[in-house]
Amino acid sequence: MIRLKFSLLLEYDIADPGCDLVFNIHAAHTDRQAVVCEALRLSQNVINYLSVDHVTHNRVLRFSGSPGNLRVFYDATVDVNHYVGMPSHTWEVPIPQLPEPVLQYVFSSRYCESDRLLEFASRAFGLQTRGYSRVQFIRDWVLSHTKFESNTSNVHTSAVDTLLACKGVCRDFAHLMIALCRAINIPARFVTGIDYGADPALGPTDFHAYVEVYLADHNGAHWYLFDPSGTAIPMGFVRMATGRDAADVAFATIFGPVVAMPPIVQIEAIPGADGILNLPRLSSEALSSID
Amino acid sequence: MIRLKFSLLLEYDIADPGCDLVFNIHAAHTDRQAVVCEALRLSQNVINYLSVDHVTHNRVLRFSGSPGNLRVFYDATVDVNHYVGMPSHTWEVPIPQLPEPVLQYVFSSRYCESDRLLEFASRAFGLQTRGYSRVQFIRDWVLSHTKFESNTSNVHTSAVDTLLACKGVCRDFAHLMIALCRAINIPARFVTGIDYGADPALGPTDFHAYVEVYLADHNGAHWYLFDPSGTAIPMGFVRMATGRDAADVAFATIFGPVVAMPPIVQIEAIPGADGILNLPRLSSEALSSID
Amino acid sequence: MIRLKFSLLLEYDIADPGCDLVFNIHAAHTDRQAVVCEALRLSQNVINYLSVDHVTHNRVLRFSGSPGNLRVFYDATVDVNHYVGMPSHTWEVPIPQLPEPVLQYVFSSRYCESDRLLEFASRAFGLQTRGYSRVQFIRDWVLSHTKFESNTSNVHTSAVDTLLACKGVCRDFAHLMIALCRAINIPARFVTGIDYGADPALGPTDFHAYVEVYLADHNGAHWYLFDPSGTAIPMGFVRMATGRDAADVAFATIFGPVVAMPPIVQIEAIPGADGILNLPRLSSEALSSID
Amino acid sequence: MIRLKFSLLLEYDIADPGCDLVFNIHAAHTDRQAVVCEALRLSQNVINYLSVDHVTHNRVLRFSGSPGNLRVFYDATVDVNHYVGMPSHTWEVPIPQLPEPVLQYVFSSRYCESDRLLEFASRAFGLQTRGYSRVQFIRDWVLSHTKFESNTSNVHTSAVDTLLACKGVCRDFAHLMIALCRAINIPARFVTGIDYGADPALGPTDFHAYVEVYLADHNGAHWYLFDPSGTAIPMGFVRMATGRDAADVAFATIFGPVVAMPPIVQIEAIPGADGILNLPRLSSEALSSID
Repeated sequence: MIRLKFSLLLEYDIADPGCDLVFNIHAAHTDRQAVVCEALRLSQNVINYLSVDHVTHNRVLRFSGSPGNLRVFYDATVDVNHYVGMPSHTWEVPIPQLPEPVLQYVFSSRYCESDRLLEFASRAFGLQTRGYSRVQFIRDWVLSHTKFESNTSNVHTSAVDTLLACKGVCRDFAHLMIALCRAINIPARFVTGIDYGADPALGPTDFHAYVEVYLADHNGAHWYLFDPSGTAIPMGFVRMATGRDAADVAFATIFGPVVAMPPIVQIEAIPGADGILNLPRLSSEALSSID
Repeated sequence: MIRLKFSLLLEYDIADPGCDLVFNIHAAHTDRQAVVCEALRLSQNVINYLSVDHVTHNRVLRFSGSPGNLRVFYDATVDVNHYVGMPSHTWEVPIPQLPEPVLQYVFSSRYCESDRLLEFASRAFGLQTRGYSRVQFIRDWVLSHTKFESNTSNVHTSAVDTLLACKGVCRDFAHLMIALCRAINIPARFVTGIDYGADPALGPTDFHAYVEVYLADHNGAHWYLFDPSGTAIPMGFVRMATGRDAADVAFATIFGPVVAMPPIVQIEAIPGADGILNLPRLSSEALSSID
Repeated sequence: MIRLKFSLLLEYDIADPGCDLVFNIHAAHTDRQAVVCEALRLSQNVINYLSVDHVTHNRVLRFSGSPGNLRVFYDATVDVNHYVGMPSHTWEVPIPQLPEPVLQYVFSSRYCESDRLLEFASRAFGLQTRGYSRVQFIRDWVLSHTKFESNTSNVHTSAVDTLLACKGVCRDFAHLMIALCRAINIPARFVTGIDYGADPALGPTDFHAYVEVYLADHNGAHWYLFDPSGTAIPMGFVRMATGRDAADVAFATIFGPVVAMPPIVQIEAIPGADGILNLPRLSSEALSSID
Repeated sequence: MIRLKFSLLLEYDIADPGCDLVFNIHAAHTDRQAVVCEALRLSQNVINYLSVDHVTHNRVLRFSGSPGNLRVFYDATVDVNHYVGMPSHTWEVPIPQLPEPVLQYVFSSRYCESDRLLEFASRAFGLQTRGYSRVQFIRDWVLSHTKFESNTSNVHTSAVDTLLACKGVCRDFAHLMIALCRAINIPARFVTGIDYGADPALGPTDFHAYVEVYLADHNGAHWYLFDPSGTAIPMGFVRMATGRDAADVAFATIFGPVVAMPPIVQIEAIPGADGILNLPRLSSEALSSID
């Protein structure tokens, strides 16, 4: 059990005539991530809607912002109790046995155009031994093929772009790994959150994007965490939202003219209810934080 | 109430070592489309899984096919009882008031890259009066901008490609209209099925793709049917599946090497339980077949 | 006759192990643009090659830069004596009558993918009366369709991207106009230089990109200047290089790792050999500065 | 010295109101390819223009076709006397030493978007020993990465598309190899012609596309032939035209509505002026057919 406490501050200048905002910034409640306490404060006095999707556990905040300054402050403490599996005993699930809600994560999506990578992925990964190790091999391939470099991609950048450009940020690493997994029929999806233990050389703490891959062991199937960017510690990841790619779960989607300040994000590991401080660490085990 | 009876025959030659198949060919059960009777026959004796998604009403058939010939025969009779609204009293729903499951249909997807069309759509449609008439205007624009031409697109063709090429088939018309709607924040999605009354000049009866747009009137919000291809009669449409675009609800997604024969599809309008034959007709009303 | 005097200073920090540099910064010598005087100074003592292409009149400077600071200073005074034609008496040249060296400017190129815009351009411009006025119509269409906005495009941005994004800088306006002309079989090319009279709201004087279109009048065929960006005065344009698109005639193409400072560019109109100061002005005439 | 005799028959049905046609079907005259005899016959009595580009040696035929049937018949006998170099003594030419007309072949073009492959090519080929062997390595990489498969590409397919799809025809292999060479600053271009000795498993004799790469040995620089498709014998290649990619030198570019029949092409090796029959053979030497 790891207890993580984090806060984030988002700030915007909204132009006339205001705009609609959608946020994925709430910590998810899952069987393996409990929200101990949390608080949301908005600097504008607006009616806001918080919905929970019972399949993905995403918590979506929406409201209409008025012209002027807007500050969104959220903090939470969560307890993460990972499912820990053995990579060598974790296998791929055949398509006909996938639960129906998982099936969509084999299909091509906006930023993960697996339909264009079928042959490429099949040549590169088709002959690898199936199972967790093949997914790990893809993750390692993406990491070695791609250079982490800020400001090299934008909101339109897709997996195909990243495969060609060989550079990007965490979002791009995730999209490329997801597209390659799907291209060989392995369900994979995008997950966003905040990281404890991210590489400080990359700048201040920020949102992070991971990959979840659907694999099974003798306890059933799980969505396992992978960090293809290699910049963080999966065990230190607080999950917010999951979707097919960044189109679904951008931390902020804004419908209208705004100027955004850089987000300010802080996170720390603190002692749990039992008074014990468990620090996230790099691990070679198979980890899941959702169920 | 319109009663439609249809059948479809799909045939494949499956190569070694077999393949996994996913079909969206079952008529949907919705509050407005009742399946009176149906039958599925497979020429191979395989375990098959039929799942129903309770949000979309999609019914997904999956199984592993063995090498050799495979025939999939499905027939059904459905009663469609459309919700009929008045276009002039049907409006757009602001983003913050969209139900959470609808929100994804405002986002960009594989074949409907609305993120690349924000400015284009805003210039073309931003100043139109909001509501059903604006959506109809977009539908008419797509129809006049695009030429129906077989074999001009393929499985990778997206809305952006169609906008440039100015030609395509029903799938492409649908993707373009969806992308343009989303680009101005109107939820839109892809729906597939079989059509009574399709233009015979386009060849034998086949699968068809439509658009559904989320709009509201004084009875609440509905997913309204639009046929941007202009080749069919919305009232004659039997709905099968709905999704973000063709990536989600291809009538067949096949994971492995097969040769597919052309599908054989038949449909007719027949008298209903009351013995009365109602024929689908072109209508200027706002129609929904889902809820 | 207009006399323009300009200077430009380019500065780079070159990393190990040095790099090759290609510049298109010399004023072209053409029958209609005479170089009265010019000087080039390099801060590094390197062997440099200056070649002139006798078809395009491009003057290409090349050398290998050493690690460290590099400053390239060039200034020149030119006399521009435009060919002035009457738009209403200027027509399009049929493909079979194009000189062989002109033919390539009808073909698709890296940033002007006319092959993807055949139908789009044909629908938008196919029915316009042929001749200079049709080209002017395309130029006006591009100007009204596209918003001048810095930092919205990059080195990979093409005409198709700009058509969709509806924004860009002078390079992007030029690429879009060129692609649309070629798509209806009108030879068009990219020309770069320095502008007297550019809109000061866009920042300090900088390099500029124009379009040249091949049309004919009773004196023969000429490459006529068009400024689709609408930010400058064609008569105030000093031509440097021309090519199929920016791939050919970037003012600097650098093969290796460098950091570039913003270029410093100055231009003024001065009295000619006869002591008379002619200022460039907006004109509705058809202008050519090459032959 | 190899003597090759070939003929080709192109046939079109031209719709109203006729169309302009541009052909690159004449055998090139170069220092190393002599046209012994040739004949062109057109079934329509039209004025036709044949231009020769003195830099590329391309011979471009143009005319306006009338509605109705058009047959273009061309036959020729050529003597090819290759320059034969030693791969191990053939090196790359630094950018500053490239002749100005060669420089354009380092730049990105429509179907060879080297600007998008800089990093990809640098990672794959940047550390190979420079020279002919590195180019051969790229050629072998393209051949092993790509599957020859008819009807998998179209007129819009580019090097990037082929890199992702891992399949295509000779045109696509050539574009991919060219783009990768340029991405590491090696001049490369597209060359079209007819092949003696093409793999008969690929169907009847047809036009073929090769790659030429600019490299130097102690005799100076040459454009060396490479066949990345691996389906032909470079020594059996009759050169027609060369350009930056297929946009420049399609064997036929047609401006208007036509239906094209499959071309009928025949080629044979015959005894030379000295009565000796030299058959083209596979060779590990460095070959050039242009100068």
